This record gives sequence, C-alpha cells and structure tokens, in this order.
Amino acid sequence: MSAKPTPLSGFPELLPAQRVVEQQVIDILRRTFELHGFAGIETRAVEPLDQLLRKGDTSKEVYVLRRLQEESAEGHAGMGLHFDLTVPFARYVLENAGKLEFPFRRYQIQKVWRGERPQEGRYREFLQADVDVIGRDTLGFHHDVEVTRVMVDALTRLDFLPRFRLQVNNRKLIQGFYLGLGVTDTDEVMRLVDKLDKLPAEKVHAMLVAEAGIDAATADRVLALATIRTDDASFVAKVQEFGVEHPMLAEGLDELSRLVTGVADLAGDRVTVTADLSIARGLDYYTGTVFETRLEGYESMGSICSGGRYDALASDGRSTYPGVGISLGVSRVVVPLLAKTGITADRSVPSAVLVALAEEESRPASERVATALRGRGIACEVAPSPQRFGKQIRYAERRGIPYVWFPRDPADDDSDHQVKDIRSGEQFAADPQAWEPPVEDLRPRITRTTTSPKETPK
Amino acid sequence: MSAKPTPLSGFPELLPAQRVVEQQVIDILRRTFELHGFAGIETRAVEPLDQLLRKGDTSKEVYVLRRLQEESAEGHAGMGLHFDLTVPFARYVLENAGKLEFPFRRYQIQKVWRGERPQEGRYREFLQADVDVIGRDTLGFHHDVEVTRVMVDALTRLDFLPRFRLQVNNRKLIQGFYLGLGVTDTDEVMRLVDKLDKLPAEKVHAMLVAEAGIDAATADRVLALATIRTDDASFVAKVQEFGVEHPMLAEGLDELSRLVTGVADLAGDRVTVTADLSIARGLDYYTGTVFETRLEGYESMGSICSGGRYDALASDGRSTYPGVGISLGVSRVVVPLLAKTGITADRSVPSAVLVALAEEESRPASERVATALRGRGIACEVAPSPQRFGKQIRYAERRGIPYVWFPRDPADDDSDHQVKDIRSGEQFAADPQAWEPPVEDLRPRITRTTTSPKETPK
Repeated sequence: MSAKPTPLSGFPELLPAQRVVEQQVIDILRRTFELHGFAGIETRAVEPLDQLLRKGDTSKEVYVLRRLQEESAEGHAGMGLHFDLTVPFARYVLENAGKLEFPFRRYQIQKVWRGERPQEGRYREFLQADVDVIGRDTLGFHHDVEVTRVMVDALTRLDFLPRFRLQVNNRKLIQGFYLGLGVTDTDEVMRLVDKLDKLPAEKVHAMLVAEAGIDAATADRVLALATIRTDDASFVAKVQEFGVEHPMLAEGLDELSRLVTGVADLAGDRVTVTADLSIARGLDYYTGTVFETRLEGYESMGSICSGGRYDALASDGRSTYPGVGISLGVSRVVVPLLAKTGITADRSVPSAVLVALAEEESRPASERVATALRGRGIACEVAPSPQRFGKQIRYAERRGIPYVWFPRDPADDDSDHQVKDIRSGEQFAADPQAWEPPVEDLRPRITRTTTSPKETPK
Repeated sequence: MSAKPTPLSGFPELLPAQRVVEQQVIDILRRTFELHGFAGIETRAVEPLDQLLRKGDTSKEVYVLRRLQEESAEGHAGMGLHFDLTVPFARYVLENAGKLEFPFRRYQIQKVWRGERPQEGRYREFLQADVDVIGRDTLGFHHDVEVTRVMVDALTRLDFLPRFRLQVNNRKLIQGFYLGLGVTDTDEVMRLVDKLDKLPAEKVHAMLVAEAGIDAATADRVLALATIRTDDASFVAKVQEFGVEHPMLAEGLDELSRLVTGVADLAGDRVTVTADLSIARGLDYYTGTVFETRLEGYESMGSICSGGRYDALASDGRSTYPGVGISLGVSRVVVPLLAKTGITADRSVPSAVLVALAEEESRPASERVATALRGRGIACEVAPSPQRFGKQIRYAERRGIPYVWFPRDPADDDSDHQVKDIRSGEQFAADPQAWEPPVEDLRPRITRTTTSPKETPK
C-alpha cells in the first residue's frame, strides 16, 4: 500500500484514545446488561435479502453482497448486510427456538450497515447495542418496565456523557384516544402526528384535516394530547380531563403509568424519564410501549435510543414470539460527541508504566520488571531503545503513560528500582514484586478538555 | 418472519452458553494484549477493492458490496468486505500516520469475510484477533520477540483449550541456507517445501528437481533442513553441521535463536515453542520471523495462529512502515472445539441468582433485592411469574443459575430472606445488603463435559 488514503464518508474510524472512550461505553453497557441477566449473543452480518426487505421502507438502505468470482448458480446474490439487530434476532429466535429458554433476555452489541446518504449522526456503518426480552406466546407487561430499567441503569452509568432524556409513550394510549374520538384511520393520524418534531403544529393540523380527513375540533384534541409531557404519572389526570373514553385508552394509560412509576427510583441526575405523549414512532411496528431518547444539549441529533413492544416479532406457525426491546445507537452518540465535546482518554495506550531501558543488553532485566508488573494486572511496556532517560520520559509523555520505571543497576549493589510519576515529577524507590499504582491509574481515564458542550452543535 | 429458517453454511452462530466461551476467549485475549501495552482499534468492514485485490491470490475470496438502489455514478461498487485485518491496518496506519506514535502497538479483534467454499474450520465469516507492532522506517528485532511473548502469554491463559504448539522459523535462515547451497530461485524452492505438510518428502523431492531445477543432492539438503525441530536453540548446531555458509543464513540463525531463547521463560505446560525449520509460509510476504501454531490433538485443523515479520507493510513515499505481527483465528479454534470437545459454560445466562416471586404484587420487593445485589456486582434476574417455588427452582435449573433467593414475607415479622444453593440443596438466611456468592459463582464458568479430546477429530 502506498500514497495516503482518504477516509470513507459514512464509515467513521477512531484514533486509539478515542477508541478507549467507545470501548468503555461498550464495557459499561455489557456489564449493565449482564447484571440484569441478559445473555450476550452475536448473529452473522448477513441475512437473506427477502428477510431484509420485508419492511419496504428500508429496501434502499441495504448493502447487497456478491462474491467477486460468483458462479451464476450460487445463492449468495440473495444476501445482504443487516441494517439493524432486530431482523437477525427474530431469525435467530426462530432458528434456535427449541434450544432457548423463554422468556429469553438477550443483548447484542454489533455493527450494522445502511446505504444511506451520510450526514452528521447518520453513518453507513455503525455500532448498535440492543436489549430485548422475548417470550413464547405471552410476555408480561413487567418486562416493558424491565427493559426500561436496564437501559436507564446503563445510561446512568455512562457518566462522562451528557444527560439523557428517555421519552416513553404507549401506542394503545394514542390509538385508544383516537378511537374514542371516533377516528378510524388511527395509523394515518399517528403518522402525521409523528411529524411534530419537524413541522409546526398548525401545519400538522392542516394535514390532519386534509390528509386524514378528521374535523378541525378533533384535530385540536389530537394535537392537544401530543403536548402532554410529565415526569411522573400525572399525565393520566391530564388525559382524563379530555373526557375521552375507550377500553384501549384505559389500557394504555394503565401501562404507561406502571412504566413511569416502575422506573421512578432509578431516574435522577443522569437520566430523566418523561411520559411524552407526542412520541408515536409511526413508521415502526410497535403495539404498546414506545421509547425515544435524546441527549440534553444535543437534541438536534434526534433520538439516539429507541424501541418498544411488538406483539409478534416472529412466528413459526406453532408459536408467536412477542417481545419488548430498546436499541442504543452507540456510534450515533459517541462519534459526534468525540468531535463536539472535549471527551477523550488521558492516554492512547493501555500502559500505566513505561519500563526504561539503560542499554540494549539490559532488556531482559527490564522485561523481568514488566512481567512482574503484568502478573499483578499492571499494563506496561518496555522502552523500544536505550535512549537518554529524558527521551524515554518524553516517549511516555507523548502517549500519556503516567509512570516511568528505572530498573536498578545490577552493577551497583546499593542501587534500587525507582519509579517516577511524570505528572508530578515525584520519584521513589519501588519493588517490582510489590509496587502498585493507585487504582485510578491502572486504566486510561475518560477526560473532558472542555467543561460544557458547545452552544450550537451542528 | 415466519417458518423456521435454516443455518447459512460458513456463517457459524453460537447459542448463548457457547457464546460465553467465545466471549471469555475474547476477554482473555484483550486483557493480555492490554497488559503488554497494545492499544485496541477497530477498522471499518469495507475497503476499496483495488486495495483488497493487490494480493492476486485472494481475489476470488472477496465479497463485493453494492447498494440495492445503487445509482450508477456512485462509487460504492468499488468496495468489498475485508478478508483479513492486515490490509485495513496498513491503510489505517498510512491514513493516520501523523496522529500515531511509533512504534505503534495495536490489537484488533474483528470479524473478517472470505467467499471460500465452506469446510470444517474454514468459514465465510469468522473472528480474528491480531497483534502487530509497526515502526516508522525501522523496527528493532526485539519486537519479534515481543509479539511472540504476547501471543504465548495469551495462549497460556486460554487454559480451557487444548495445548498449543507455536512453531517459529525465519525466512532469512531458509533463504540464506538455499543461497549458500547455490540455489537462485529461493522463492520457488520455499513454495515447494511448504507442501511438506500435505505431500510425502519423496514427492516434494521430485518436484524440487523437476520444477525448481535443483540437483538431487541439493534437494536432499533442502529437505534435511526442513526436518530440524528443536524446543531450544540447539537447532543452530544442527544447521551448522551442514557446513553451509551465507551472511543471510548467519543472520537468520541469530534471529531465530534470539527468539527461541527470548520466550523460553514463558513456554511451559500450556504452550510449547518449537524452532521448526519446515515452516516457510511461502505464499505470504514475510521477510524474517514466521509463525504457525497448532492445537495439540487437532493438528488436522492446520495452523490457527500465524504471522511474521514484514519489512514494508506500508509506505507513503516519505516513510516505510516495517512491522511484525501474529493473528489468531478465534472462530477457527472456538467453533470446532465447541463441537468436538465438551467445552461449554455452566449456565446460559449471566445471572448468578434468580430472585423468586411470591405473588405478582410483591414484584417491587423482589426487584429491590435484585437492585441491591446488582449494586455489589451480582448479576441476577427476577422470576417472570409467581409460579410455585418448585417451578421457579426448575426455571433456575434449566438456565444453570446456581442460587434462588426467596424474599422475606413482609406480613411476617419473624421471616427473613433465604438463599438456596440449588446444586447442593443447602438453604440459609441472607441479607440482600450484604450477602455475596463465592467469587467463582459470580460469572459463568467454562466446563468440559468430556475430559479428553476425541481420538480422531475430523
């Protein structure tokens, strides 16, 4: 390979210190999901095209695969890269249903691919982290509360990121309200209400009358419902003030208040949970609970964590598999924030210690120090060449390695091992078999070079 | 999705308990690489086809991408999925050379794709784990020792897998020996010697004479060199017995003996390091050290961990970037071993504890116990429904969850929380704010259902 290559638009890559941030996000997500009993799985990157294209809207986004030397008879022309983790998970559940225990809790943290036109926060390759609980034939509503709790817990632990606002709603509540108003094409009304985050209310009102064929007074009430936002179950009283009645509305109100109440103890400084009756996710196939999530100060990035309840994710003729899940766009959060906030890691290498090298012949002695440190879980590296110690210290500085270890001089019985904290300049004698750095120096730390997000992120 | 899907040949997927094994392999690799100061990076899955096709041999294996609704003017027709992690790493180094510190140590654990005909141990999608050290313009030989030490350390820690045999050689040694014998087309001779693991020596001898045009006596010595195998530096004396002399041979002997000596302290019960003078990796572009690795008892799987020194991995006109690296085929090891040995995890979920549920109304109380346990790092889940406790215990048993927690009865002041170890049947009072299981129960453990590998793995 020669000549400098240029980045490929829509396929973000990270420098080593940036990758430390992404890796810590992944580690925290995985750890949280496992604490809640979710099993990690991975699915293959490819799925049959006919499965990927079942939702017509995404057909334009799919990357199709072929082998360079494809024989015409071979079936791989019918394969594409997955564009989410839900379609592959549904297929995995059907394929392995006889070997899985239900309810099946799984998390999945993998890359997905979409052939969209790249723009900020929209990538052609990105990392997604999904949690779902899937049942066989039935799945209690408390699992809706459960996946919300899991994601709130995870987002709370991502404490180097801005605050999150998790917005929850319930399709039964909206549809029941519309049915109670006498609306028949509830899907069309929901689709138009979904445009409220892009269009002014008057415009949506006009569309409700013109396109959904409802009268102006009904449109008023449809839009009034969508203005309700509460951080507790007080939305119930606000909805009841409309005097609209329908069994599906009552069910939706009950479910949503159970959800908001059920996560109240977890929400707080890092995450707000809001019942937001404008959230409909009109284009997706949810049947009850729906989620969206926004980063405070970065609302223009849109929802970075979405999901909901689907009553029939998959079906194999004998059984149906209802599920509830939520999906975090890891790259959609991490990649723009690395660029916009000063979030980075305080070192670009895992090493907490650089073991110095007095001369090439003493490399085995320096290696023995390194091996002893590694035996106690201390990441370290030996200097690549026996330069002046000042140069070796600068080698550590450039990488953010906090400590330089100077091995004892074997020719001098009075010498001992010395460790220098190159941040403070402090230097002290140390035993390779016993010394340990403070716990917070063991791994790279996430730092922010600026303290607050920029005013107008683009 | 409906009707049961069938697996896709060449794209292995794991059940949750199997994934625990693979995840532990990945975690151990990553931990070891980081202890040695290697930074983790990921590269995008796609590369320009012209870069992927520079090595003509692999052209047939590349998966080409196109967007389903591709506009003809768009450039994505020229993209393919990477088939290894070396080509993308070389491109990443050139693209980011100004922002990286050299020597640059990196590890990379990612999926790669090859459109090969699937067969045992050969997959179309598989996970690879690479470590490389790359320098700018120069890279000391001690880094060859370093990457070997890193991989020996990692393989040693994979103690639930069979023993590994790491075979090392040096291209300078072989080529210098051939040059000392008066052979001119050393590449062709090396290519033929590489066939020794598939063809009998007499057959290779005949090919050396017929195809490489060397005389029978020279072919004898070429083949005699390839029979040398020692677990220490005694191969040097054996080579010197031939009386062949060449400066490149001397350099190769020196490097290989430094390598074998330099890892002697790490090799042992789990890993043997052998100087094996038959290893040439004739089809790859190595310039010094070469590695192959076999699993003892599973030699038919071929080399599962290979690599070497390449003097010019990449060049941007101003600088060249020499490197040395080694690549472990994680899927090639894990997937067949899951099938052949009885390796699995003792549970299919991360949960160490199932918190039982007396009645649906007491779910919040059970959740509080779960939250308290999670606060101390104990993975757990709450029972999905208030069945008879016997049924809840069987729920835990089917998943391999070792403990069932029975919350105290709030209506009975004398009751306390009880924990049952369902393996022993032992049950005892416990405090949700203080109880901890033994450390070895915190996470799923790797177990073997059979104690020795089958006699004739296929």
